[in-house]
Amino acid sequence: MADKISMIVFTGTDDKMIPVGVISQAAAALGYEVYIFFTGWAMFKLLKQPMGEVWPKEFEGMVPKLKEGMARLKAPSWKDMLKQAKSMGAKVYVCSMMAEAAGLKKEDFDPTLVDDVVGVTTFLEQAKGGQVLFI
Amino acid sequence: MADKISMIVFTGTDDKMIPVGVISQAAAALGYEVYIFFTGWAMFKLLKQPMGEVWPKEFEGMVPKLKEGMARLKAPSWKDMLKQAKSMGAKVYVCSMMAEAAGLKKEDFDPTLVDDVVGVTTFLEQAKGGQVLFI
Amino acid sequence: MADKISMIVFTGTDDKMIPVGVISQAAAALGYEVYIFFTGWAMFKLLKQPMGEVWPKEFEGMVPKLKEGMARLKAPSWKDMLKQAKSMGAKVYVCSMMAEAAGLKKEDFDPTLVDDVVGVTTFLEQAKGGQVLFI
Repeated sequence: MADKISMIVFTGTDDKMIPVGVISQAAAALGYEVYIFFTGWAMFKLLKQPMGEVWPKEFEGMVPKLKEGMARLKAPSWKDMLKQAKSMGAKVYVCSMMAEAAGLKKEDFDPTLVDDVVGVTTFLEQAKGGQVLFI
Repeated sequence: MADKISMIVFTGTDDKMIPVGVISQAAAALGYEVYIFFTGWAMFKLLKQPMGEVWPKEFEGMVPKLKEGMARLKAPSWKDMLKQAKSMGAKVYVCSMMAEAAGLKKEDFDPTLVDDVVGVTTFLEQAKGGQVLFI
Repeated sequence: MADKISMIVFTGTDDKMIPVGVISQAAAALGYEVYIFFTGWAMFKLLKQPMGEVWPKEFEGMVPKLKEGMARLKAPSWKDMLKQAKSMGAKVYVCSMMAEAAGLKKEDFDPTLVDDVVGVTTFLEQAKGGQVLFI
């Protein structure tokens, strides 16, 4: 059986989107099954009209240097890394309960990023037997 | 052997209590063994006289809409979801080291939510072989 | 095969360094293989000249009582717990991509804390088959 890594992405600040992109891309390239479940504030990053940038208040002063460094490395954006992961088989879901609470439907989400809107039970069954990160 | 999911609940903002309730309830309903270890700031949510609401500074402006949406769905509170999970076998612990650092004893915690105050070693041994989330 | 627990340490506020120390020390004492991958803001806590204290804005008012309680218990610092874990075999890595984005090299990090600067792929392969926490 293939190794499997799943992520529940909740926090929603832009800093934590970087590891979502990096880990999903790296794990997919290693041949892992990858399942990513967006919920909470992070879900709003996947809209066709996504939420603007949000950085943690505690580290705001360090953000310009981080962005500058990522640009210098020509690092792809987290969305581009997520798309690379998807091209290798990763699946990206949005939490149906949180979407409904926010009045959002499947067609509100960017179809190049989101595969489906599903319940947590569906996600847990796909994640079964693998590693799971809460981000 | 049954599937097993464990959570270390640390962050303590009210947004992240929602997935604690949702995941524990859903996993218990799927027949998973569920172990939840409250520590850090989250521990204060389980007191008989719990800490008031605390929301992440970055998303404060979005909280009224979230609450309104959860009310519209008639979603149970995270405490009610946790109680449902407990009625299906989930166990809820408080970290003995953090409780002692805060001058708290078992009798300070709501007995309808908390099963016991234990050390991290006890928790790790129960969580062994299963999935673990740090929330 | 020994049990294995790995951590991706990203958030970087001082409160969340406590469980990094506690869990790595406890798991190493239980005989687990322990792999810890520092990235994001947390990486700056491992510099020879580390970043100063940073506490979550939401709980700043509770920090003096937490520190007082930890001092009363004579709890070791998270760095001392991490060193104890390392003396029992735990390995501590810094993310090469984030280090490079920040213009940091292996020699900028405290060698009593950091074993090596590696890529996420190396970390994922070491973490394979074990529990993983994102902190």
